Amino acid sequence: MSRPVTLFTGQWADLPFEELAAKAGEWGFDGLELACWGDHFEVDRALAEPDYCDAKRALLERHGLQCWALGAHLVGQAVCDPIDARHEAILPPDVWGDGDPGGVRRRAAERMQDTARAAARFGVTQVNGFTGSGIWAQLYSFPPNDFAQIERGYEEFAEQWSPIVDVFDAEGVRFGLEVHPTEIAYDFVTTRATLDAIGRRAGFGINLDPSHFAPQFLDPAAFALEFADRIYHVHVKDSKRRLDGRRSILASHLNFGEEERGWDFVSPGHGDVDFEHFVRALNRIGYQGPLSIEWEDSGMDREYGAQDALAFVRRTDFAPSAVAFDAAMQR
Amino acid sequence: MSRPVTLFTGQWADLPFEELAAKAGEWGFDGLELACWGDHFEVDRALAEPDYCDAKRALLERHGLQCWALGAHLVGQAVCDPIDARHEAILPPDVWGDGDPGGVRRRAAERMQDTARAAARFGVTQVNGFTGSGIWAQLYSFPPNDFAQIERGYEEFAEQWSPIVDVFDAEGVRFGLEVHPTEIAYDFVTTRATLDAIGRRAGFGINLDPSHFAPQFLDPAAFALEFADRIYHVHVKDSKRRLDGRRSILASHLNFGEEERGWDFVSPGHGDVDFEHFVRALNRIGYQGPLSIEWEDSGMDREYGAQDALAFVRRTDFAPSAVAFDAAMQR
Amino acid sequence: MSRPVTLFTGQWADLPFEELAAKAGEWGFDGLELACWGDHFEVDRALAEPDYCDAKRALLERHGLQCWALGAHLVGQAVCDPIDARHEAILPPDVWGDGDPGGVRRRAAERMQDTARAAARFGVTQVNGFTGSGIWAQLYSFPPNDFAQIERGYEEFAEQWSPIVDVFDAEGVRFGLEVHPTEIAYDFVTTRATLDAIGRRAGFGINLDPSHFAPQFLDPAAFALEFADRIYHVHVKDSKRRLDGRRSILASHLNFGEEERGWDFVSPGHGDVDFEHFVRALNRIGYQGPLSIEWEDSGMDREYGAQDALAFVRRTDFAPSAVAFDAAMQR
Amino acid sequence: MSRPVTLFTGQWADLPFEELAAKAGEWGFDGLELACWGDHFEVDRALAEPDYCDAKRALLERHGLQCWALGAHLVGQAVCDPIDARHEAILPPDVWGDGDPGGVRRRAAERMQDTARAAARFGVTQVNGFTGSGIWAQLYSFPPNDFAQIERGYEEFAEQWSPIVDVFDAEGVRFGLEVHPTEIAYDFVTTRATLDAIGRRAGFGINLDPSHFAPQFLDPAAFALEFADRIYHVHVKDSKRRLDGRRSILASHLNFGEEERGWDFVSPGHGDVDFEHFVRALNRIGYQGPLSIEWEDSGMDREYGAQDALAFVRRTDFAPSAVAFDAAMQR
Amino acid sequence: MSRPVTLFTGQWADLPFEELAAKAGEWGFDGLELACWGDHFEVDRALAEPDYCDAKRALLERHGLQCWALGAHLVGQAVCDPIDARHEAILPPDVWGDGDPGGVRRRAAERMQDTARAAARFGVTQVNGFTGSGIWAQLYSFPPNDFAQIERGYEEFAEQWSPIVDVFDAEGVRFGLEVHPTEIAYDFVTTRATLDAIGRRAGFGINLDPSHFAPQFLDPAAFALEFADRIYHVHVKDSKRRLDGRRSILASHLNFGEEERGWDFVSPGHGDVDFEHFVRALNRIGYQGPLSIEWEDSGMDREYGAQDALAFVRRTDFAPSAVAFDAAMQR
Amino acid sequence: MSRPVTLFTGQWADLPFEELAAKAGEWGFDGLELACWGDHFEVDRALAEPDYCDAKRALLERHGLQCWALGAHLVGQAVCDPIDARHEAILPPDVWGDGDPGGVRRRAAERMQDTARAAARFGVTQVNGFTGSGIWAQLYSFPPNDFAQIERGYEEFAEQWSPIVDVFDAEGVRFGLEVHPTEIAYDFVTTRATLDAIGRRAGFGINLDPSHFAPQFLDPAAFALEFADRIYHVHVKDSKRRLDGRRSILASHLNFGEEERGWDFVSPGHGDVDFEHFVRALNRIGYQGPLSIEWEDSGMDREYGAQDALAFVRRTDFAPSAVAFDAAMQR
Repeated sequence: MSRPVTLFTGQWADLPFEELAAKAGEWGFDGLELACWGDHFEVDRALAEPDYCDAKRALLERHGLQCWALGAHLVGQAVCDPIDARHEAILPPDVWGDGDPGGVRRRAAERMQDTARAAARFGVTQVNGFTGSGIWAQLYSFPPNDFAQIERGYEEFAEQWSPIVDVFDAEGVRFGLEVHPTEIAYDFVTTRATLDAIGRRAGFGINLDPSHFAPQFLDPAAFALEFADRIYHVHVKDSKRRLDGRRSILASHLNFGEEERGWDFVSPGHGDVDFEHFVRALNRIGYQGPLSIEWEDSGMDREYGAQDALAFVRRTDFAPSAVAFDAAMQR
Repeated sequence: MSRPVTLFTGQWADLPFEELAAKAGEWGFDGLELACWGDHFEVDRALAEPDYCDAKRALLERHGLQCWALGAHLVGQAVCDPIDARHEAILPPDVWGDGDPGGVRRRAAERMQDTARAAARFGVTQVNGFTGSGIWAQLYSFPPNDFAQIERGYEEFAEQWSPIVDVFDAEGVRFGLEVHPTEIAYDFVTTRATLDAIGRRAGFGINLDPSHFAPQFLDPAAFALEFADRIYHVHVKDSKRRLDGRRSILASHLNFGEEERGWDFVSPGHGDVDFEHFVRALNRIGYQGPLSIEWEDSGMDREYGAQDALAFVRRTDFAPSAVAFDAAMQR
Repeated sequence: MSRPVTLFTGQWADLPFEELAAKAGEWGFDGLELACWGDHFEVDRALAEPDYCDAKRALLERHGLQCWALGAHLVGQAVCDPIDARHEAILPPDVWGDGDPGGVRRRAAERMQDTARAAARFGVTQVNGFTGSGIWAQLYSFPPNDFAQIERGYEEFAEQWSPIVDVFDAEGVRFGLEVHPTEIAYDFVTTRATLDAIGRRAGFGINLDPSHFAPQFLDPAAFALEFADRIYHVHVKDSKRRLDGRRSILASHLNFGEEERGWDFVSPGHGDVDFEHFVRALNRIGYQGPLSIEWEDSGMDREYGAQDALAFVRRTDFAPSAVAFDAAMQR
Repeated sequence: MSRPVTLFTGQWADLPFEELAAKAGEWGFDGLELACWGDHFEVDRALAEPDYCDAKRALLERHGLQCWALGAHLVGQAVCDPIDARHEAILPPDVWGDGDPGGVRRRAAERMQDTARAAARFGVTQVNGFTGSGIWAQLYSFPPNDFAQIERGYEEFAEQWSPIVDVFDAEGVRFGLEVHPTEIAYDFVTTRATLDAIGRRAGFGINLDPSHFAPQFLDPAAFALEFADRIYHVHVKDSKRRLDGRRSILASHLNFGEEERGWDFVSPGHGDVDFEHFVRALNRIGYQGPLSIEWEDSGMDREYGAQDALAFVRRTDFAPSAVAFDAAMQR
Repeated sequence: MSRPVTLFTGQWADLPFEELAAKAGEWGFDGLELACWGDHFEVDRALAEPDYCDAKRALLERHGLQCWALGAHLVGQAVCDPIDARHEAILPPDVWGDGDPGGVRRRAAERMQDTARAAARFGVTQVNGFTGSGIWAQLYSFPPNDFAQIERGYEEFAEQWSPIVDVFDAEGVRFGLEVHPTEIAYDFVTTRATLDAIGRRAGFGINLDPSHFAPQFLDPAAFALEFADRIYHVHVKDSKRRLDGRRSILASHLNFGEEERGWDFVSPGHGDVDFEHFVRALNRIGYQGPLSIEWEDSGMDREYGAQDALAFVRRTDFAPSAVAFDAAMQR
Repeated sequence: MSRPVTLFTGQWADLPFEELAAKAGEWGFDGLELACWGDHFEVDRALAEPDYCDAKRALLERHGLQCWALGAHLVGQAVCDPIDARHEAILPPDVWGDGDPGGVRRRAAERMQDTARAAARFGVTQVNGFTGSGIWAQLYSFPPNDFAQIERGYEEFAEQWSPIVDVFDAEGVRFGLEVHPTEIAYDFVTTRATLDAIGRRAGFGINLDPSHFAPQFLDPAAFALEFADRIYHVHVKDSKRRLDGRRSILASHLNFGEEERGWDFVSPGHGDVDFEHFVRALNRIGYQGPLSIEWEDSGMDREYGAQDALAFVRRTDFAPSAVAFDAAMQR
């Protein structure tokens, strides 16, 4: 109804950007949240080539699309993570370099700073992404965690990200962490700890994606209310539990889309997220930014799904009431 | 009713062994499952000192207790785990040595072999424990897992544990993996993969502890039925979910006993495990071994709890019917 | 499908009537249920001005609208209620007068009689509304209720409403009490008592609004079946429970729309009412009157909501089968 | 989306075939599943009259309709059933003959063989139907069943149906048993027993109708996965439980459509079947045949319902993804 | 607390009566409900041998036991049932005779009349049992039932049982039908029809066994309230549903005790029956007769179970309050 | 285990005090919470007669009983309530006087001050009770509440109770409001408002009775955690919901114990309160006072129930752990 609906391009990076933009425009999206990988939004070229940003904008406008946010999940992940072979597959070669963990993390941090600069040049004030986490792997306390080490994990996050957020502040851009397993914050408790660690500074907020809440049995509407002043961007994505006593909520080391997983991502409206309650919470906190569909459902055709999701959001995103009803009744 | 009830001593290692044995005997336990740490069961002394085992038996008998199994969880964990600082706290100094990961893992494997030898000398045919896991930390596939690496994790487990099980076989002792997060097997799917990897050989079975199933929404009775021929030992332990939309099932990097965790361990009968259905499944598969109470509940006094748990097991463990009812009706 | 869909105008009394009629006609409603407040339907003018009713009808017809019922909730409330300051806000000044309780109640009763007369003149045979209640405030029996006084409450209701229903009967108009907390009847038990008290006379029936059933955990379809011969009119309104252990079903003395209430009204189809089952019950009892949308949802834009509700009703209101299937199969 | 949607004509046999075809074509169906009763598909004429099949095809094509399957439920029922008066009502007179049970069963079996021949002539490779059951009536073991007799029931089924399937095989046509109470197979256990009894031969498969699963609390998606290679045809039909402590799941010997039954058939999407999960299972097993709406809902107008059901299937039947998402993310 | 607790001997008929009486007395039962099979209570001998009843009483008294009711389920079943091979196994040879259905049913009816006479001689005024049913096998209406035939089934029941009840009336004994699948009445609707068919005469009442209600999702407490004046005797028996999407509530033609059944009988307090609510309903209707444990649980040792059940009933059967609390508060 | 268990005498005021004390002592209670009505604890005599308190103590001690709290619910109710005829039945004659509302409220306030004085003289530092409420009757906002008036209700409460709490403070006694419908605070929201209104002064706390939370769907454990520093006393009482679509949670103006109410009070452990979780919360907040059984269950014999409740509390009230388990594991 009232908010723009965008498509996050991260899961479409196999398509040439222009082809994707043409589709999205035709389907009726209001804009794209550009992924900083593939040829969707190239940070290095945006900073190096004077007309890169204008050309990108022009292409978007040809298809009736706007852009309110960038997605820099992959590089951000490497800032705090212990680096292993899996990171090579998601990082640009020049960030990966020789793969030495310290160097990878440092270069990733620098690339995040550049991303803020490129966003500003492109005229976008919101960059979403991941932070990585030095403590995620200690998810289950066995061998028994040294909980002082957990505390130290939050501190290291703050040390690594504060200089990045300094650049974001300087550029007038805000970062939105997608609260998500494998990140420094993945639920209520860890989000509180994360925001506290970084001093609740305004440059570091949240990209709220409810699909990561359902498999944890968390209520994203309650999350929006608690962290109202840090909800900077919203993803529309869904997930579904399939717990029958034989499938584990921990997903059995199976890939997304495997039948025996205890949960999976599904197209918005086809899962466990209560989007109506979620929209009411967004109304209550006055969120006015885009609803950005991050589409991922291994059981549904992608192009059918993107359109199905857009229609779902259009009919679910209603505005709050502007009338006090008792007023009408009292005469 | 029909099965012996033992107390696993792992959570009581702060008590001198004789003091614990006296308490357990007085409370009415049938025996103890001896932890291989503290002074409860010392593998090196059992092998080195000719009368260690006899003295231990004599002490047990003075308190009317028997022993059917040893618990070697801590050392076993180091066999497959990537070694980090937390392992130092749970390993004997001579296994930890200089802490070099390769050496630690090798010495842990040797100690497990010794444990089989010591068990045989002590006259016990069952050793329970953990295996560790080289792939546990890749629980959530981001950065996207290389699933060939997951497969490789199972293979490495088999490579590391096969020589250990060879010694178990030679000694006439069986190993029981406690299926558990952080181990190579923690649910149905991973248990199938684990047993397959090691060739479903008889020396490697399961110590079934239902408390690890409830937080994964798994049915331990169904597990007992599926893996009936590998259920070598049973722990009685319970856990409780407290999911209210704000507490995560992933437990928020909080320690056991913290209010905001989404689940916690509780005294048997106080949680989500359906022990009656579990006992019926044990009856159906013909399990005749001990029910070993592993007591852990941060909200209940330990000595009260051990006795409460014993009473709970006594009234829950009933024998199956020996009569066909229709026979009685048909005349 | 088969029944006309109307919009109850009570929550739109802040709009001039013609403006509302134009909107409703454009949105596709079949008619309006006119509230007897604001300028929607003025009982005194309808009786005093010879062409008031014709002009009102003409205006409706210009917008393609009909009218099958009036809503006289506010004045009706004052007939049995103990009068307090809140009533002044909902009553016409001439009914409120000097605010002396006895006089207010008497004038309200007379106005209800006039409403029947005005309805007849307008060509409408159904008036919906409230009755008030002398015993509602004794909802919870502490200090312990004198239950004879509760019985007396039903009797007084009958004494106060019988003369009103006499006029309804004389005019060929029926009254439909909206079963609702704060009224003499708000659930199954109290409706039985209410209908019994007034002798189950045909002039006094029910305006069934399912939104008042959900917060009481009542089944409006079962209600329709039990009181089938007294279901004279049906409201389409919805409500949603949000019970999380911290919000009370008693609503905490908070106004509608407050976040911490345990339940709230929502646009039809967005709440806990099972409208499909409700429609099947209406089919079964042969109800053929209008489905009148009483729209109230503090979290949704009113004009969006009215159209959303209309579409919802159109796709939910199907006719029963006219074929016996076995007949088709048996040959 | 991807699969053709057909209408099973069995519940419309009171309409002349041409009238039904005209309606179905206009409503947008892709084809019809022709019932072998009424004048929809007459097996004897198809075999006897050289141009019967061509004329039937031509009529279908005039209305833009195809045909992928026949429905031969009624005659099939008599093959294994103990014959009683009810069968006369559903059998063609020449199959019923003098009603002697042995003769009826033999003639029914022959007619099924003819049905395979007629299907082949008509160019259709799938015939759906019932088998009847010699043991259904021993549903509840009192007087105590002789379970050897239950086993014998499966054997007799195999004896009676093997010669029929021989003809199906010879004609290149497959039979699809609609798993259903009153048939030899009605759930997971009995389907396993049935397929085993007949040697899991390819000519005998399943017409999967999920509406018969919901009242048994069975999961039709899990059924599709378990019997993936025998799912030859799919019905789209729904049912709804209405259990309130007073209505029995056994349905109280009441006819369909009675208020006090514990469950009833309803139009697809209005009941307890989780069609989304069901479609995902069909995608997973690679089912590419028609989705055939068998429409039966005593509380809904039939023509409204058929169109409502078609629209429901169109929006629920989506194709699986053709893209591996991680591929898109990994660059 | 207040009601006597008895053991129904039907499932113990493999034990010599004296052995069973000794056990039951030792366990603390107040009495036995004697099954009319085995040597527990032999109707023919009770009528033929002058001191049979006295000797039986004396034996009971030696073990501190009383008797308030007989159980004549097996013979009663043959009165209305279509007779098949299974009945031979449950009938006395002289009732079975040559097995001709008409003769079997007639002799069964006569034996029931004799049972009333024997009960009177023994000093017992209650006989519980089954009726059989001519229509049970038409449980699912396919081939479509002729519902006039269902009506006729109730009438035939009345014709067959009225002469039996005549003898009961003459002897001052009451019959209690155990409402149960396979009987003429098995739920609310069929009980209403059954009582109506037999003219709601006082000699024909109900033996209420809640274990048959849980698998039908019926509420036995509500049943007690509705049929309060016909609750003549109460069985204490339990059953448990195990529905997981793969087990059918219809039980798959599997014998009791098979793992894959969707439900099974279990020892009282171990299943789905809400006995506390049931006892409160018995208190409300003023039932003062015995609570008779019919013990059947294929997963539990019988002798353990009988004692467990007795203890369960003793702690669950509390008396209602004799004090009005408000009286105490109002001073 | 660790806390004293007392019996609140309010529901036993029909018994002479000595008789009740004898019973309670024999049953094994640790003490009594004396009601300030009947002859249990007479405030006026305690202040007027020099040896009243000593004699009362001596009588208690004869039966092995102590006293930690008084219950002054009835007089407290009159402080804020609008006075009506029902109050006469619960007030001492000299407090009621001529029944003029202003005078009744004033005298009730004075009597509460005297109660503090009498408690101090008796050596008890805790008085529990009700406050009444000037706004309870506006539970449902129709006619629409003037929410400023609701605010005023909290202010008036503070004005009326502050002088009372002044005396409590002076006497070293604390007041514990039983959070309860009909009182100024009945849930989370209203308790926050109430404590805020009275300045969160230490003399005014809470008597936490979980039975009033279950019918509101509130979690008393969460309440204990939120208001930890104001939980001064705890009642053990239970309630049960019986919602079946026909019984209203608002209780239909029916008295306690009526079958058709949607909920009712029941003996502890027989209802919906999760006492185990409640005890864990009391452990967590460090509550060390008595657990006082307020026994009320119209469906259970009172004396049976009191003993059943005592046994229930004894087995449910366990102490928290004093050991950190990881400590035991880490060696």
